[in-house]
Amino acid sequence: MRAVVCHHHELEVTDLPDPEPAEGQVLIRVLRAGICGSDLHARVHADATAEIASEVGYEHFMRSDVPVVLGHEFVGEVVAYGPGTRRRWEPGTRVVSLPLLRQPGGLHMTGLSPEASGAYAELVAVSEAVTFEVPASAHDEHAALTEPLAVAWHAVRKGDVKDTAVVVGCGPIGLAVILMLKASGVRTVVASDLSAGRRALAARCGADVVVDPTTESPWDRFADDERYLTTAEDFMNLGMSTMEKLRAVPFLPWSRVFQAAEKLGAVPRGPVVFECVGVPGILEQIISEAPLMTRFVVVGVCMEPDTFRPAMAINKEAELRFAFCYDPAEFHTVLQMVAKGRVDPSPLVTDTVGLAGVADAFEQLADPERHAKILIDPSL
Amino acid sequence: MRAVVCHHHELEVTDLPDPEPAEGQVLIRVLRAGICGSDLHARVHADATAEIASEVGYEHFMRSDVPVVLGHEFVGEVVAYGPGTRRRWEPGTRVVSLPLLRQPGGLHMTGLSPEASGAYAELVAVSEAVTFEVPASAHDEHAALTEPLAVAWHAVRKGDVKDTAVVVGCGPIGLAVILMLKASGVRTVVASDLSAGRRALAARCGADVVVDPTTESPWDRFADDERYLTTAEDFMNLGMSTMEKLRAVPFLPWSRVFQAAEKLGAVPRGPVVFECVGVPGILEQIISEAPLMTRFVVVGVCMEPDTFRPAMAINKEAELRFAFCYDPAEFHTVLQMVAKGRVDPSPLVTDTVGLAGVADAFEQLADPERHAKILIDPSL
Repeated sequence: MRAVVCHHHELEVTDLPDPEPAEGQVLIRVLRAGICGSDLHARVHADATAEIASEVGYEHFMRSDVPVVLGHEFVGEVVAYGPGTRRRWEPGTRVVSLPLLRQPGGLHMTGLSPEASGAYAELVAVSEAVTFEVPASAHDEHAALTEPLAVAWHAVRKGDVKDTAVVVGCGPIGLAVILMLKASGVRTVVASDLSAGRRALAARCGADVVVDPTTESPWDRFADDERYLTTAEDFMNLGMSTMEKLRAVPFLPWSRVFQAAEKLGAVPRGPVVFECVGVPGILEQIISEAPLMTRFVVVGVCMEPDTFRPAMAINKEAELRFAFCYDPAEFHTVLQMVAKGRVDPSPLVTDTVGLAGVADAFEQLADPERHAKILIDPSL
Repeated sequence: MRAVVCHHHELEVTDLPDPEPAEGQVLIRVLRAGICGSDLHARVHADATAEIASEVGYEHFMRSDVPVVLGHEFVGEVVAYGPGTRRRWEPGTRVVSLPLLRQPGGLHMTGLSPEASGAYAELVAVSEAVTFEVPASAHDEHAALTEPLAVAWHAVRKGDVKDTAVVVGCGPIGLAVILMLKASGVRTVVASDLSAGRRALAARCGADVVVDPTTESPWDRFADDERYLTTAEDFMNLGMSTMEKLRAVPFLPWSRVFQAAEKLGAVPRGPVVFECVGVPGILEQIISEAPLMTRFVVVGVCMEPDTFRPAMAINKEAELRFAFCYDPAEFHTVLQMVAKGRVDPSPLVTDTVGLAGVADAFEQLADPERHAKILIDPSL
């Protein structure tokens, strides 16, 4: 089969032997694969990422000196089954799969490990247990986005947004977060990005307010909204004035005062902020600028060490939830949402290339004005 | 009245005019005041803290070049009322109060601002609206600890612990967190501190397991407990093996598979970790060492910028909740808990001194082997 191999930071189309589906595996023909920010990153920084992965207990993350076929976002059609499979689907059935492959030696990350060849290829092996049939109503291009949308869906669930979310950074993952926030019914989504092209995409993905942070602050809108605490004075006033009001009621029994205080004094939450930039300094910046009591869901993967002021985070009672990866149920939910049209990821896809176009696509993706997500169609 | 004034980083007993209770205020005679870590810090680093406070929107935090009477943890007895008060309590009634004073010019932090003189003094003015009568069953020394226990109670509520908590750092606030964790019914509290003296106090406060981190890891116990994910392999296995088990059931309808997956795959949470050290580097260390999916409640106030690896926090899906300050209802709840004996803070108090002993007490508190909390009794 033809495949794009990443080796010593270079991408090259190569002929490789067709994968043999092992115990519990299904072989699928790739219809579309997505190029992910993690892939761009892995091409350049695989070794640093492998060190972190090893420290967390995964020893088989790709390194630059071993050839790897990238690609962990994909849709394909069933070609053949390995032993010990349930053979649920006819050959030709469209499926998506979690990029998680049970090999005889252990579990591996598809497309990010030499132990589990990825979907920048004509064929890829998947684990039957985490593979799902694609409903007929879902386009190939949309089904291929199940994986990145599941990352965003997981982050959105972690955010548990009440009514307002701020998305900082509108790259592919920020845009996916906007799509899933709107799909989940969040009323107001404020999106911020330095790039005009990405701001336009954010609006197409459903952002209600789109901000250029060089000319406008995404936080201004919270300063005059009394549901939000933007200064320490607001914070002190909340408890004090609640008590002053309660104490002014004659003959209110103490027990009632406190029942009332617990309700009235229930501290208003800041907006939920999705950090989708992932560069050093961004956390310090948004913690310092956002209202008090804000929850930050950190989705942008910053690979360098980062510095912030804990005293500021404490003074503002910030909450940071780091979001990594969906579970199989979340992945399945997203597939159904795509199939039912509850989310339309079309704006994400800015181009489709063949295997021969992948190396160039990696270069193009460096320009935020031009691209969000580029898909690969190995038949081109 | 006699009071301890902090000026240019020095503490000195001084004669000051008695405070006049203003609109809405009650004048109380101090029975006990506690020396807080924030006081130690404010003596040395007031100017840096004032900068952060100003950035958050409070312009009146103390600075080293203006004399201030410290003291925001205290119990006293009613002496006199200002205008516009409800005069609920007879003179001599024991009360505690939030350290939050409504002055004609605005709200101020008692004992941490020149606008609201603190309780290292014979007399202190408090706001009637946030003042509470102390039930007869509570000792003076215990009632004086309502404020720091409320800080801990707020952190414990933020932690929302299921069954196991780890307290890193057993200074006064770590010990208070241990007390409130046990008072709230948390089954297992693991406490860790470099100092043997503080480890002994942690045990007296109710810690079930006490660890010297130089010879033993507080995290070892989680490695063999299958409720916790300690490696990326564990994490990958959770989703995959759930799905493998479900798929092995013949004729299980898909909808049921996913109902089951959402239950079975419900990701086990790590323990809840209370960071009560507050020095640079501690967050990076505990995020790297703790199990995946751990919630960290950050109670220790680190005033310097701090550096950590966001990639590690993301890989482990860490959650950081920064805890600052209780609300009036939490403060009141803690007072009732103390009065009813649901929490016994006796182990915290390692000494009581008069006003003349405060400067020396500040020096003594630098040695973790000897002291946790020192109280001030202005009558001594």
